[in-house]
Amino acid sequence: MSRLADMSTSAIRVDVRSTVGRDYPVLVGPGTLRRLPTLLSEHAAAHSYALVGDDRVMDLHGAHVAGVMETLGRPVHRLTFPHGEANKNRTEWIRLTDTLLERGMGRDGCVVALGGGVTGDLAGFVAASYLRGIPVVQLPTSIVAMVDSSVGGKTGVDVPLGKNLVGAFHPPRFVLADTELARTLPPEERSQGLAEAVKHGAIVDASYMAGVEAEAHGLLAGSDPATTRMVVRSVEIKAEVVSRDEMEGGLRQILNFGHTLGHALEAASGYRLPHGSAVAVGMILEARLGEMLGITEAGTAERIRTAVAAVGLPVEPPAGLSLPHILGLLSRDKKARGGEVRFVLLKRVGEVFSGEDGGAPAWSHSVPSDAVARVLDGV
Amino acid sequence: MSRLADMSTSAIRVDVRSTVGRDYPVLVGPGTLRRLPTLLSEHAAAHSYALVGDDRVMDLHGAHVAGVMETLGRPVHRLTFPHGEANKNRTEWIRLTDTLLERGMGRDGCVVALGGGVTGDLAGFVAASYLRGIPVVQLPTSIVAMVDSSVGGKTGVDVPLGKNLVGAFHPPRFVLADTELARTLPPEERSQGLAEAVKHGAIVDASYMAGVEAEAHGLLAGSDPATTRMVVRSVEIKAEVVSRDEMEGGLRQILNFGHTLGHALEAASGYRLPHGSAVAVGMILEARLGEMLGITEAGTAERIRTAVAAVGLPVEPPAGLSLPHILGLLSRDKKARGGEVRFVLLKRVGEVFSGEDGGAPAWSHSVPSDAVARVLDGV
Repeated sequence: MSRLADMSTSAIRVDVRSTVGRDYPVLVGPGTLRRLPTLLSEHAAAHSYALVGDDRVMDLHGAHVAGVMETLGRPVHRLTFPHGEANKNRTEWIRLTDTLLERGMGRDGCVVALGGGVTGDLAGFVAASYLRGIPVVQLPTSIVAMVDSSVGGKTGVDVPLGKNLVGAFHPPRFVLADTELARTLPPEERSQGLAEAVKHGAIVDASYMAGVEAEAHGLLAGSDPATTRMVVRSVEIKAEVVSRDEMEGGLRQILNFGHTLGHALEAASGYRLPHGSAVAVGMILEARLGEMLGITEAGTAERIRTAVAAVGLPVEPPAGLSLPHILGLLSRDKKARGGEVRFVLLKRVGEVFSGEDGGAPAWSHSVPSDAVARVLDGV
Repeated sequence: MSRLADMSTSAIRVDVRSTVGRDYPVLVGPGTLRRLPTLLSEHAAAHSYALVGDDRVMDLHGAHVAGVMETLGRPVHRLTFPHGEANKNRTEWIRLTDTLLERGMGRDGCVVALGGGVTGDLAGFVAASYLRGIPVVQLPTSIVAMVDSSVGGKTGVDVPLGKNLVGAFHPPRFVLADTELARTLPPEERSQGLAEAVKHGAIVDASYMAGVEAEAHGLLAGSDPATTRMVVRSVEIKAEVVSRDEMEGGLRQILNFGHTLGHALEAASGYRLPHGSAVAVGMILEARLGEMLGITEAGTAERIRTAVAAVGLPVEPPAGLSLPHILGLLSRDKKARGGEVRFVLLKRVGEVFSGEDGGAPAWSHSVPSDAVARVLDGV
């Protein structure tokens, strides 16, 4: 029935093309961690390794993963930082960098990022800027990192004026998503990752969105086969998009669906609203915006709303956010170009609206600010 | 007689191939600044520009250069930081970044680095990491920046454990070296830049080194024709090397001649020894090291010593540096691989020794540490 149900549960490899670095494979499946030494030798041979993770993930998996890596006979430095998005900042980036320098890691070192999106972004930027760049490997442990952030090479940190405003495109040498590592995640945290899976369906594959909705129960409960099938399909979608436009000059912008308003809501909440929840609400509102402008098929926002609710995410912003504050934050959004705020708009579920901009396809669009205000006002 | 004397003094263009970014031109000559608006339109069209320089350079040239840029009808933000290598650090990088964010510069912005090596490195790294990378243009005003640091895409900052240990390869969209901007530099500062010119001769062009030595008087006095000829030849050499090996996987290492010991001397002096002086002494010592090992032709160190002295640079390290301290700093050098300190060694003036490392040419070499100690002990 759904696309998800048809897919195999065995480990699968998806290749990502890169112009910034080398092409790289993404391996997905339960138990794939045992392939780590071989993959490191093949794609990221190094004189020494830095295994970087937050305190929680390192407590859970650090010793095991370091043990697997040590079978290579190379030094493995374990570096830990305090968990939480609040620590994805320049202070921790400096601390991790200087710790690696103190340990004497050279240009022939390699960073292995073990954790969720925060770790991938932070450790990735440490690698990107360390001695002007050393390789990084992504070992995602959260759903959001597996389906989204570990693939595509975006790294960076948050700064007082906004999230991800400092960083680098630094593609990993490979991504290894062992879905067994995600088994113990609490359902709330799994929900957060499912927002990006719903988004992948919403922008390019309606049957995938339906599949995520239909299997929501198993996905939230931590079922291995359902999780692997989902990660594989999301990685396929993300790999296809970033292979075609790594630097986000065009097509890659479609991955920002739900994110323009999502980021503003997140910021307006003082980052109390988690990213996945913010994107979930952002997708519904941006679909509504498209409907209001006559670009998006009627009923699209409602279909996304149903999928979002099924995976346990909020369908409206938290009470008490100030509309002028949100609008002010929007104009600071880093996707602003020439002072315009731009949105990815759907044609319908599974299809992004592509306008034209001087002959080339345009994947994001400026929208009259009163329309944005009306959508935000209606919630 | 000398190579320098044969060259034209008109503005000249050298092209640099890049795999990280686009290929880019380097324009050298007196008065080339008037070409800035055209070059910006062609190679770095942007919604807004950030002109970044230190307080001294901005006082001297900021208003004029900003005025030239403003003819494009785009906003030009002027950003200033306190002069001196001590400010090429993460604190200033953060301050400049956050100032650009406050001014609302988007991904369609462009950084223009106006100044010496410190400015090019610092502003270049701001651009490399701003919103995951925006374009940078290099407008060198010092000799060292014109002959060396503005070309090749290396950007970065110093950290407590050493210089240039954090950064990125971020090639400029173009380099514009208006030799008139260097006319007012004091001779001491010109000397510092001549160290890299001597180095370019020492590694690939003996007649160029002889030319720099022969024209030292004019070069130190600020003669425009001599300066332009020198900058052109150095840019040609640097462009050829970085076009063949941008990421310093191999050949580009030859540009580190004199720098392994130079960096250690610089650090050991608490950075009181200027970079050019440190490289000057480093070249003499590394040539002596090569002679001691039987790799470098006898008399090479002496020839380099003569050239170094002619351009007003020191030929021995400052008194009072501790040998164990220098040796300790060496092993921390970022070029250390697998715990080995590596040196670029000459065959003779104008030719680098190339060994073999598993079939591939090796441009840097590990050297017995007692030989290094003996060379340092002899000074």
